[in-house]
Amino acid sequence: MPSQLPTFDDVIDAAARIAPHAQLTPVLTSRTLDALTGARLFFKAEHLQRVGAFKFRGACNAVWSLQAATAARGVVTHSSGNHGAALALAARTRGIPCHVIVPDNAVAAKRASIERQGAVLHLCAPSIEAREAMCAQVQAETGAELVHPYADARVIAGQGTATLELLAQSGGLDVVIAPLGGGGLGAGTALALHGRAPQAELWLAEPAGAADGAASLAAGALRTDIVPDTVCDGLRGKLGAPNLALLLAHRAQAVTVEDADTIAAMQLLWQVLKQVVEPSSAIALAALLSRREALAGKRVGVILSGGNVDLAALPWLAAA
Amino acid sequence: MPSQLPTFDDVIDAAARIAPHAQLTPVLTSRTLDALTGARLFFKAEHLQRVGAFKFRGACNAVWSLQAATAARGVVTHSSGNHGAALALAARTRGIPCHVIVPDNAVAAKRASIERQGAVLHLCAPSIEAREAMCAQVQAETGAELVHPYADARVIAGQGTATLELLAQSGGLDVVIAPLGGGGLGAGTALALHGRAPQAELWLAEPAGAADGAASLAAGALRTDIVPDTVCDGLRGKLGAPNLALLLAHRAQAVTVEDADTIAAMQLLWQVLKQVVEPSSAIALAALLSRREALAGKRVGVILSGGNVDLAALPWLAAA
Repeated sequence: MPSQLPTFDDVIDAAARIAPHAQLTPVLTSRTLDALTGARLFFKAEHLQRVGAFKFRGACNAVWSLQAATAARGVVTHSSGNHGAALALAARTRGIPCHVIVPDNAVAAKRASIERQGAVLHLCAPSIEAREAMCAQVQAETGAELVHPYADARVIAGQGTATLELLAQSGGLDVVIAPLGGGGLGAGTALALHGRAPQAELWLAEPAGAADGAASLAAGALRTDIVPDTVCDGLRGKLGAPNLALLLAHRAQAVTVEDADTIAAMQLLWQVLKQVVEPSSAIALAALLSRREALAGKRVGVILSGGNVDLAALPWLAAA
Repeated sequence: MPSQLPTFDDVIDAAARIAPHAQLTPVLTSRTLDALTGARLFFKAEHLQRVGAFKFRGACNAVWSLQAATAARGVVTHSSGNHGAALALAARTRGIPCHVIVPDNAVAAKRASIERQGAVLHLCAPSIEAREAMCAQVQAETGAELVHPYADARVIAGQGTATLELLAQSGGLDVVIAPLGGGGLGAGTALALHGRAPQAELWLAEPAGAADGAASLAAGALRTDIVPDTVCDGLRGKLGAPNLALLLAHRAQAVTVEDADTIAAMQLLWQVLKQVVEPSSAIALAALLSRREALAGKRVGVILSGGNVDLAALPWLAAA
């Protein structure tokens, strides 16, 4: 099932499945940011989701989709951060084991968050080979079910539920913009958005230093030769195959953003919206600010995907 | 009228008066912070109020309480920050002039915010004498109405509207805690809280380095001999006379907090609640953390009073 492409109905099913566990996050608005962009912005506050990121939606849908016998053997994933914590918590809501394989250079706050949720942490070298070897080993030893961070139909359907809510809460949108990493959020957003609003546009904000998604969309085929170099630690993953297929089918448009613009947008969101969001979220506002002329008067949904910033990196706060 | 003590009915009237202009701010909750305190916490997000602080409520109520002829001459106040920006915006909603007297050592972000709202800024030396002299001069020259930051019945009644909303949004509370500076928020909270829930307790969090409020409540009379020394720039003002009278009548309890504990609580609110709040707000959570044993199982409202932090003081963000 994970390799099949999910549909809009899967997003609807996911919404019902995760409702007892996930947070219905608020939608925030700002007169100041509307004036700055010329649009009417609706910020879906997924940094206020459980574990501080939309990732809980997909992980929760995957965990609660499992048959009881499969579930009992547990779940396993590899993740540099938010998906690991999300799967750990999702497993805990069902009382099943969870194993997370984490590169040993991952952000400290995200590693701590995974452990706090009660998962077994397996550190590996920061290479795809080391990660896959350890993942295979854990699967062999435990029989745990792999829940890939984004190239998984259950995960994609779960991520789409944020946009179902956003559309209802905002009263309709012309454009939705989401950050693009592996494409779990992008593909889920595409399904939810066009299931409800076929004419709406889907924009995807991607770091210029990790723009394999934009290149893949342009080429119509996966580009795997790009080495990520960006502060957006949540967006360094390579676009997945089912994710690309869905994004092409939904005519998603990529907008690439320089890191400096992302950090400036993050500062704006902290200062004006008073929300602690991570760079991988702020990139969406940066993308909008670079495309102001196309936004005049439009109703735009912005997915604030996560808020797991390492505050220890802020000397002013750490000094206290 | 400003020197009379306001009543619960004045809070009800204020709520209707400011409704067209003020934001109905959300109430946030956190499983993590509930676990940490042993209470059920309801955070009233007044840092998401217009101009980023509850102060807009009182200022707006004062401005829209004025007779047309008085209003036409404008309003004037002295403020180190949030009240100045709030009165400036409130005046703008009514299309009348506003003058703000600001000490020349005020936080840059707050000065900029006052000017952005279109008020005339008058800088003075950071002493009470210099401030009052300039205030008298502006009043004499313009006929503007003085709207004191906290020792004003209209302002107190306006601040109470946050707690009216909080009580409705939370479904009832055993304790409400608010920061204590001049006592505008404290006195307004007292009126609203006991108007709806006579048995509920009112706690007030005050910096140990500016604890004239705690000393005044203990003495039953204003203590004016304390020189403030605290990072909580919004809580350096001296408790006002009408404010003390109301707080005594409502048996408010002061809890004093060291700055280091306030900064630690601020970091918690940024990290866990993902909200950018200023030290003068975070002090309320610090006070709760110091009184955990008294809170077990209680429903506690926490007023997050403002979020106007000078992010330029964060080198990590400023470097971008």
